[in-house]
Amino acid sequence: MASFKNLYSNRKLDPGFDSNFSVDYVIPYNIPEEGKAEAEAGFIQLIEALVKVGLTTEVRNGRDRSLLIFVKVASEKVLSDQVYWSRLSDWLNGARTVGPDKDLASSFRDEPVSEAERLRVVYLLMTKPKNEGGAGITPGSGLWKNVDSIFPLHNHTFNRNWIQKMSSKYIIDDTNLNEIRNSFGESIAFYFAFMQSYFKFLVFPAAAGFATYSLLGQFSWLYTVFVSLWSVVFFEFWKRKEVDLAIQWGVRGVSNIQHPRPQFEFEHEAEDPVTGEMVKVYSPFKRLGTQLLQIPFALACILVLGTLIATCNSLEIFITEVYDGPFKQYLTFLPTVILVVMTPTFSTVLQAFAERLTQMENYETLDAHHAALVQKQFVLNFIVSYMALFFTAFVYIPFGNFLVPYLDIWRAAAQRLTPSGKAFATQEFVINPARISNQMFYFTVTAQVVNLITETMLPYVKRQVLNEAKEVQSKITNNGQGKKIEDPPEEEAFLNRVRSEVELETYDVTNDYREMVVQFGYLSLFSVAWPLAACCFLVNNWVELRSDAVKIAITSRRPIPWRADSIGPWLNALGFLSWLGTLTSAAIVSLCSSKDPNGAAGSLTDHKGWAVLLSVFLAEHFYLAVQMAVRVVMSKMNSPGVQKERKERFLMKKKLLQENLNQEVDEKAAAPGIAKTEEISRAVLEEEARQASIRGQGLADEM
Amino acid sequence: MASFKNLYSNRKLDPGFDSNFSVDYVIPYNIPEEGKAEAEAGFIQLIEALVKVGLTTEVRNGRDRSLLIFVKVASEKVLSDQVYWSRLSDWLNGARTVGPDKDLASSFRDEPVSEAERLRVVYLLMTKPKNEGGAGITPGSGLWKNVDSIFPLHNHTFNRNWIQKMSSKYIIDDTNLNEIRNSFGESIAFYFAFMQSYFKFLVFPAAAGFATYSLLGQFSWLYTVFVSLWSVVFFEFWKRKEVDLAIQWGVRGVSNIQHPRPQFEFEHEAEDPVTGEMVKVYSPFKRLGTQLLQIPFALACILVLGTLIATCNSLEIFITEVYDGPFKQYLTFLPTVILVVMTPTFSTVLQAFAERLTQMENYETLDAHHAALVQKQFVLNFIVSYMALFFTAFVYIPFGNFLVPYLDIWRAAAQRLTPSGKAFATQEFVINPARISNQMFYFTVTAQVVNLITETMLPYVKRQVLNEAKEVQSKITNNGQGKKIEDPPEEEAFLNRVRSEVELETYDVTNDYREMVVQFGYLSLFSVAWPLAACCFLVNNWVELRSDAVKIAITSRRPIPWRADSIGPWLNALGFLSWLGTLTSAAIVSLCSSKDPNGAAGSLTDHKGWAVLLSVFLAEHFYLAVQMAVRVVMSKMNSPGVQKERKERFLMKKKLLQENLNQEVDEKAAAPGIAKTEEISRAVLEEEARQASIRGQGLADEM
Repeated sequence: MASFKNLYSNRKLDPGFDSNFSVDYVIPYNIPEEGKAEAEAGFIQLIEALVKVGLTTEVRNGRDRSLLIFVKVASEKVLSDQVYWSRLSDWLNGARTVGPDKDLASSFRDEPVSEAERLRVVYLLMTKPKNEGGAGITPGSGLWKNVDSIFPLHNHTFNRNWIQKMSSKYIIDDTNLNEIRNSFGESIAFYFAFMQSYFKFLVFPAAAGFATYSLLGQFSWLYTVFVSLWSVVFFEFWKRKEVDLAIQWGVRGVSNIQHPRPQFEFEHEAEDPVTGEMVKVYSPFKRLGTQLLQIPFALACILVLGTLIATCNSLEIFITEVYDGPFKQYLTFLPTVILVVMTPTFSTVLQAFAERLTQMENYETLDAHHAALVQKQFVLNFIVSYMALFFTAFVYIPFGNFLVPYLDIWRAAAQRLTPSGKAFATQEFVINPARISNQMFYFTVTAQVVNLITETMLPYVKRQVLNEAKEVQSKITNNGQGKKIEDPPEEEAFLNRVRSEVELETYDVTNDYREMVVQFGYLSLFSVAWPLAACCFLVNNWVELRSDAVKIAITSRRPIPWRADSIGPWLNALGFLSWLGTLTSAAIVSLCSSKDPNGAAGSLTDHKGWAVLLSVFLAEHFYLAVQMAVRVVMSKMNSPGVQKERKERFLMKKKLLQENLNQEVDEKAAAPGIAKTEEISRAVLEEEARQASIRGQGLADEM
Repeated sequence: MASFKNLYSNRKLDPGFDSNFSVDYVIPYNIPEEGKAEAEAGFIQLIEALVKVGLTTEVRNGRDRSLLIFVKVASEKVLSDQVYWSRLSDWLNGARTVGPDKDLASSFRDEPVSEAERLRVVYLLMTKPKNEGGAGITPGSGLWKNVDSIFPLHNHTFNRNWIQKMSSKYIIDDTNLNEIRNSFGESIAFYFAFMQSYFKFLVFPAAAGFATYSLLGQFSWLYTVFVSLWSVVFFEFWKRKEVDLAIQWGVRGVSNIQHPRPQFEFEHEAEDPVTGEMVKVYSPFKRLGTQLLQIPFALACILVLGTLIATCNSLEIFITEVYDGPFKQYLTFLPTVILVVMTPTFSTVLQAFAERLTQMENYETLDAHHAALVQKQFVLNFIVSYMALFFTAFVYIPFGNFLVPYLDIWRAAAQRLTPSGKAFATQEFVINPARISNQMFYFTVTAQVVNLITETMLPYVKRQVLNEAKEVQSKITNNGQGKKIEDPPEEEAFLNRVRSEVELETYDVTNDYREMVVQFGYLSLFSVAWPLAACCFLVNNWVELRSDAVKIAITSRRPIPWRADSIGPWLNALGFLSWLGTLTSAAIVSLCSSKDPNGAAGSLTDHKGWAVLLSVFLAEHFYLAVQMAVRVVMSKMNSPGVQKERKERFLMKKKLLQENLNQEVDEKAAAPGIAKTEEISRAVLEEEARQASIRGQGLADEM
């Protein structure tokens, strides 16, 4: 693993880090003690399969009874053929406007092959099914069960340069995004592009939030309207930006080119009405039936996690605001401890359910499967992240007074547990609207900081400790067996580096997206209770963006550079949170801001019920109207990407036309119609017409 | 004009009706008394311009100092060139997937030229600007101010056949639609297709309405939910159907090929970023500024028409429900008389305003101009059609009790007018929820019948009377001047028929769409107050569909067969009415259905306010959820048109590919990659790999 020092110092990179020896991919291959013969046979098949598709291999020892297979393309010809076919298939699938040039040399001059494209093409060459011309390697399953994984090596020269650039600049510009794209693929470049846009947009609510907090305090209508407006504009902006980037990067429509999911089970085969090929079919209506199970799943999530959160919250309320007995300072932490222990447990179970459900939905393609899984995970994240705040905002604050008598269960339960019959000391219950602000502070500051640390520092520390432990263990084992990996001295540094990279975790951009979308949710749904939230997010995201770069470059394996033409299922999640945010903000403000003399602060009265309902209703229509207006205005703006695409399409057609028609075109275009008209003497016709206006004339009857 | 008798009888068509003598268009040309010389010079220019673009002409006398110019294409070559160029330009503009074949004969064999296409191409040849290869004739303006109009002649043989078919069938099928399309163009075919779909869908609310009316009475929640669901399904269905039809008819995207609006004023010229041509530009943001004037315009409409309707309604309520004095039976009609007289007056003024506003918005194209005008007219129609019902549902019923004291203005006003000081006899005011049902009955039955009569019978009768009058006048004039049109006997019948067709009105499909959309609005917004509405509409529309056919075939000039790829701006209107309908229905039902013991039937109490707001809120979200669900389900369904288009595109690309690559394709497709891979002895590699797994080996270092 590259160390921070190594990447940050200005001196030359450590030996072993400065070159990949043209290796494209590394395949760690396990040779277990039992089934050694089988594993060795599989190994030979693997090498054969790789060679067959035009790859060359080298093999070295890995750690712990494993081999490292280094894979590279056998010749530039194989690569250029593969790139050509990939571009051609893009064009056939509608992801490119212009087909690739037959002349490969000129084609690659106009559009050079980036590192990401090379790696992607090679990866597909290894993993595509055999009937599609690939080697059909599926790590970990069937014939390839001993294939641990397939991953590309980091380009540490690029990485060092990249991290240095990122940490010395405030803003990531298009050049940086292009570099990311060329090195890690569009899928990750989209994440950085999204982060950058979101970061820039956050400046507005941060400023508004700061001003509101200093001048108007919490629960301000002005701030609600502003955040609602902002979230609509941001959402619509990103929707356009996404399309634009996809076109500029030449990946628009790649989400339609999907990789088949090996686990897909088909009902019958049928002819594809478009291409005429035989395709495997699974009835979409049968799937729709399975998808309906999502509703009971969502209800189960709400029930399980909701009950947990409501229980812990009510217990906490009882202890902090009603209970006044002994050990109060320790008991306060009890609900938090229960939550911290139980939430991951329940989440894991529900997560497993979600995966099972998605499998049952039996999608044809990996993308569809992934999107469906993300959607279910979003439901879980939504509940875990926001339920406590929902409970406070819409149960504790409006109905606190009515619900306090029910808190007596806690008293009764506690009383039964304590042997002495004396009653607990209690204090009078008063609803504390500051509770929601405190919770928001926790979620936006404490939780983000903790998360940042666990995300970047922890894997690093964990890895260091594990490495030390392994080395010690390795020494002990070697002493026992008297065997040690002996590398030739010129390879030692490189092989050690590769062995470290094998140990790293796989980077999944989904988790980073999830974090940002959940953050957007806090801002949109509840920031009205603590307007400084956006300021904290602004600081957090500046660091996050850089720490994500470090995570990709240092603490993870290099990801496969997949393509993408959008941020995928997260776009819908953003839209949903933006809409829901308008409703909750309006409800919270109208609940907490008015100074109703009859009720306690925030407590629900008949009059207030009206006000809440009406304000939610109005806020929603304000949101819908703004959305419509923003869409109209944005549709008037020129989008460079869309224009580029239209131009390309037009020029392609023009070219085709000229090729086909050659001379004819110029001739006809000059004066269509007339060139071909029969020669009729004009003077004769004029005279005739004049005559006709005066007297009736025989009609040239054609009967 | 063709008479009903002529078209319905089974014997041969009257002489003059059975053939158009290959005439494509008729141009009536006025020669006014003053400026006769100028008109004659213009006439010569007109004939010259027509001949120049490849048309031949014949001239005959028309009625009232006018000439009739008969236009036809000079040769089949001119026509086929024009059709070819029109199809080519469609392809360049993206309205066709496949460019037309260079070989005209085979192109026309695959895709014959329909009557509609021929007429459209010839019309464009006459009216396109000169720099685009047309004759540049703009009837009624500039050089062509004496050109009355340009219109094609009816094909009475087709018309008779068509009307007979329509009146003998319950349902119009795709063959009928294709006939309409081939004869009158896609624009009118779309209207019939929409009518047919709407008619079929109406069966469901008609059945539900009848069942509700018989079993549950008015103001039923069940019916509200059903109609809301139905309107979503219908709207989403039609959105898909529209796209599908457009593809099947080969007109998808023709709305992008727009005809420039001659009155358009540009700010500056700029290069088109797509085609590279110089285009005239008007800032869209400047236009957006002008478009914002629509908001005060809409408010003015609501204020002017709303005040009128509210005044007349309150007066009517006072007279029918409070007033009990003399002349009550006559006075009851007073508000209706005021409404009938004043509404058209105000409407005309506002309509003029709408036209002025649309002109100020300065659109580049006729379509955009038309859509903007339709949008403004829809606001007017909306107010005129629904305001009275809105007033009853949301002012009279909930607030009637509070507002009755204000009705005293009427009493005071009346008292001042009557000399005798005696007080008026009044009765106690009781809110009458049946009022809304009575109004609905009026709008859905009385108004529709009256409308049907005015639409079909009136023009017919008017024309007959006018014709009689003209004949008499003509006789008198001829006696005075001693001059009479003398036609050769073989032409007399035909010329008389043409002279009649000149007198007919121009058919505008917009008005028929408007009628249907307004009807859909009644159903969606208020039918809950009178569930039988849909039954009446079902009957009405069966007749309407046929009477519209008669209107086009008999009482109007033959329309220019324009193309269209949708029902245009009406789609948005439908969506809006469907959404608003859910809100109003829920509000009306919760206002009128509950038997609140404290208030009068329908009168608003505090409790009811809550209920109304809540039910509207829930209904809206029910609507949005259903919409989403319907969209998901519909997206899973195969759409024949869309599939056809995708297939065409795929085949075109495949063909291009094969043409370009010839042999190469087959070779490579068989085994991509491997064919080109260097020949590496497999056995050697296998052995090497096996060796490598056991001992370290020198890496083929390329440094």
